Amino acid sequence: MRTSQYLLSTLKETPASAEVISHQLMLRAGLVRNVASGLYTWLPTGLKVLRKVEQIVREEMEKAGAIEVLMPMVQPADLWEESGRWEDYGPELLRLNDRHNRSFVLGPTHEEVITKLIANEISSYKQLPVNLFQIQTKFRDEIRPRFGVMRGREFLMKDAYSFHLDETCLKTTYQNMYNAYCRIFERLGLDYRPVIADTGSIGGDASHEFHVLADSGEDDIAFSDQSDFAANIEKAEALAPKGTRPSATQELTQVATPNVKTIEEVATFLSVDAQQTVKTLLVQGANENTPVIALVLRGDHQLNEIKAENLSEVASPLTFATDEQIQTTANCNAGSIGPVNLPIPVIVDRSAAHLADFICGANVHDTHFSGVNWDRDIQNYQVADIRNVVEGDPSPCGQGNIVIKRGIEVGHIFQLGEKYAQAMNCGVLTETGKNQTLTMGCYGIGVSRIVAAAIEQNHDKYGIKWPSAIAPFQAAIVPMNMAKSARVKETAEQLYAQLQRAGVDVIFDDRKERPGVMFADHELIGTPFLLIIGERNLDTQEIEVKNRITGEKSLMKIDQVMSLFQ
Amino acid sequence: MRTSQYLLSTLKETPASAEVISHQLMLRAGLVRNVASGLYTWLPTGLKVLRKVEQIVREEMEKAGAIEVLMPMVQPADLWEESGRWEDYGPELLRLNDRHNRSFVLGPTHEEVITKLIANEISSYKQLPVNLFQIQTKFRDEIRPRFGVMRGREFLMKDAYSFHLDETCLKTTYQNMYNAYCRIFERLGLDYRPVIADTGSIGGDASHEFHVLADSGEDDIAFSDQSDFAANIEKAEALAPKGTRPSATQELTQVATPNVKTIEEVATFLSVDAQQTVKTLLVQGANENTPVIALVLRGDHQLNEIKAENLSEVASPLTFATDEQIQTTANCNAGSIGPVNLPIPVIVDRSAAHLADFICGANVHDTHFSGVNWDRDIQNYQVADIRNVVEGDPSPCGQGNIVIKRGIEVGHIFQLGEKYAQAMNCGVLTETGKNQTLTMGCYGIGVSRIVAAAIEQNHDKYGIKWPSAIAPFQAAIVPMNMAKSARVKETAEQLYAQLQRAGVDVIFDDRKERPGVMFADHELIGTPFLLIIGERNLDTQEIEVKNRITGEKSLMKIDQVMSLFQ
Repeated sequence: MRTSQYLLSTLKETPASAEVISHQLMLRAGLVRNVASGLYTWLPTGLKVLRKVEQIVREEMEKAGAIEVLMPMVQPADLWEESGRWEDYGPELLRLNDRHNRSFVLGPTHEEVITKLIANEISSYKQLPVNLFQIQTKFRDEIRPRFGVMRGREFLMKDAYSFHLDETCLKTTYQNMYNAYCRIFERLGLDYRPVIADTGSIGGDASHEFHVLADSGEDDIAFSDQSDFAANIEKAEALAPKGTRPSATQELTQVATPNVKTIEEVATFLSVDAQQTVKTLLVQGANENTPVIALVLRGDHQLNEIKAENLSEVASPLTFATDEQIQTTANCNAGSIGPVNLPIPVIVDRSAAHLADFICGANVHDTHFSGVNWDRDIQNYQVADIRNVVEGDPSPCGQGNIVIKRGIEVGHIFQLGEKYAQAMNCGVLTETGKNQTLTMGCYGIGVSRIVAAAIEQNHDKYGIKWPSAIAPFQAAIVPMNMAKSARVKETAEQLYAQLQRAGVDVIFDDRKERPGVMFADHELIGTPFLLIIGERNLDTQEIEVKNRITGEKSLMKIDQVMSLFQ
Repeated sequence: MRTSQYLLSTLKETPASAEVISHQLMLRAGLVRNVASGLYTWLPTGLKVLRKVEQIVREEMEKAGAIEVLMPMVQPADLWEESGRWEDYGPELLRLNDRHNRSFVLGPTHEEVITKLIANEISSYKQLPVNLFQIQTKFRDEIRPRFGVMRGREFLMKDAYSFHLDETCLKTTYQNMYNAYCRIFERLGLDYRPVIADTGSIGGDASHEFHVLADSGEDDIAFSDQSDFAANIEKAEALAPKGTRPSATQELTQVATPNVKTIEEVATFLSVDAQQTVKTLLVQGANENTPVIALVLRGDHQLNEIKAENLSEVASPLTFATDEQIQTTANCNAGSIGPVNLPIPVIVDRSAAHLADFICGANVHDTHFSGVNWDRDIQNYQVADIRNVVEGDPSPCGQGNIVIKRGIEVGHIFQLGEKYAQAMNCGVLTETGKNQTLTMGCYGIGVSRIVAAAIEQNHDKYGIKWPSAIAPFQAAIVPMNMAKSARVKETAEQLYAQLQRAGVDVIFDDRKERPGVMFADHELIGTPFLLIIGERNLDTQEIEVKNRITGEKSLMKIDQVMSLFQ
């Protein structure tokens, strides 16, 4: 590719609208352009990266025995009614009507279409298992699209769906996909981690997310510092403190705490550590009989909303009690609630339940209790894991302590079970002639999001530092003052022809631009090798090679350049 | 690929819903499945064909210097308002609202998005010309989707758009695209023709369609039997008959023609040839002053609606007069209209204008005139080319006569001119510093339609006969009774491994099926070579090779099989 016949579209200025570095660099390097909120055009350079990611995903899916299909983006509403998601799915599901006023959706995912297909096409256990995938454009009507293609509305996704006669078979394919995902992210050259994940609204029994580690990630991942354990913080178990709870040594004492509301204010006012206090949060209950539930956490801990809403007593999605409910239930405002004599179910986090002689709200305005002790002062309560782990917690795997890093979710695999197969009557005849509902797995990769995540993880102040497998170009030929030197021009043209013949994805910068402009563009775009051809070095048949990743410059004989790409 | 690990999904019965052979075979051979009206899932075998077509299109577009991009399927309405097509485009444009009630369309084509992109990205004449393409999913809300993927609603299209400073440059790129299209259809192995086409509602100056010839095609193509001339019948000029018109020899005579309405009835009743009659059609005029216009054709000729609506006097789209208008204007019903004393503008086809002593309606119920002559009996009329050419007509190229064949439109290229660039303010600074509106070309290929068109052109009673470049598999290994013969199994496995290593796209039929079932499936799918491994021939280290296209069977030494694929 010659830049003179290409749409380079690099920008000198950082567009003000872009919040995160990957979005800024994708705009500046000419990878994408915004068409409307959450909708992007992929420019030539961006599309080259996208296609390379797509091809690696495709190859590894095929190697793992998955078969590619292509389902429509526009899906009839009746399939979604059959699965129940026409009702359940929120406004992210874009609904539309055709000219005959029939209802459709723009597919955010394809469980319905594939389950119906399998129900029609597969009738015997002999045809199982089957694992079908597609790499296809999805649409999710995000309420606030942001971070460029990281959270866009229209995006490219690889989604796969496997169907099985039993759970053992599902688990085998699940592990197979887990391994394929590891190979994919390794080949992409990304620092990634598979982490245990919550199954969320999609349902099912087991789930892993694949995260690209980056400080700008939206998710917190809990790792063990001594094992392979990694889990989304939503799902990472906080173990109960070891040993037995200390015995009570203080009397229960009511303390006036005027204008003291937050944990920090309480701790400061009473000169204690926040770890010696508890906070009490009121949330909606799952049953009519218990409309409000109290959740009690140690003062320095954070509620884990996913863990809380997974409790049968708590309404899902988690909803905090209204000010009115707080007043009616606890007779005070939110700053003074505590578990002593609270006339509602109380669920206490494992760490809070391990405290003795602690401080809590007294359910009286501007008043706290000190010297509070479980069982002596509060009799009815239940203990559960409802907090986020924090760094230094013992790892739930039993080895080492928790370290927390941020990650960008780029893949997610689920053991779905029978949810869709049951709703859509997807079964086969078994060997004994019985009709058996199939069990299902689903496996997603955010293809376009990977491009952004790779940049979040690989950039410097000059621009993008692509892993070589997905760099838009493997090399850039940058001739110095080609217009003035026939020898430079001839060498550049020869090298270009030679690299093209060898199948190297090379861009030849044949613009009449100053060297500084050309260098800046190619460093911004992140081409791994800059091949700089100058009059000065041609006497010795050499060119200057600049490595974008290491920043190293070296002189290299022209006939050895090919060795960089072998 | 082993059939045991594949989704073959062939059908024995022809689905009743499928009208055309390509749709029937695409269902039976397991290429696609219907999801809803005009919406299809591409099954593995179909997708393999689709991807092969896509790749040939991509390679030839890139060789021709076009650069690939990817635009969103969901497009904001404001771009369509800017171009004027929000109003102009009919109900095939699917309009939708997002969760914030903003209006969007599902892109049926991308002139607006690309013109806006170029307006933003290109500011100097130095960056021109540029030719961008994408291979992307489109949606057109057809009122009556039919013929499977031939006229579906969601389909895969290659669309390209070129931008130029002047028309000379546009014409160069247009010719370049014309040549690329010829290479594409040649590589696809299809019998195709580029034909002169009407530019239709998309506007512009010149246009060619590319048709795959097939009896089931929806379009009539007029060819010269002695030159390269080919035009869509919509656009093929019907030349005026040679020589001067014969002189009048008969008197104008009114003839009672009770219950005689159609041309055939008139010709039979009066014992003349239909060529000696004319028919008069009343249509809506383009101006308020002339709400109805008469179009006069020779009795044996058909009106060409495109030619008629391209006349400035005639309303576009062409609309026939209502029964009321006919009664008011001609004082009779449609069966008795004629041009004599008709008080409205009369436009006469060139061939009808060459008649003497002809027969026409008398504008009196159940009455005709015979011995009618132009100028003597009808003074005010205008002559134009408003009929379809018919076989035997002289070719408008000046060489040979017209032959008509049916075609399926699979490509269309346009010289668009400034229509979109002007509406969307897309210009650059020229060398002299002037702002210059760009001129544009656009170039479409129906990628998914090509799959169906290839089948319409290449099939027999057993199934599809793929051109080798787009066959889903290049070869099928069909072992006979593999379960009973270790030697057959071993040979099949070895051959499979060898073909795979050589990069041959091979399917290994490892099902426990009768040979007849396997043969029928692979002939239906249309794999070019069946490699049949039987115990009988292994003594001589031979296998049977069946050529799907020629039907020939031959024995071949196993170590020579690879030569079939080199």
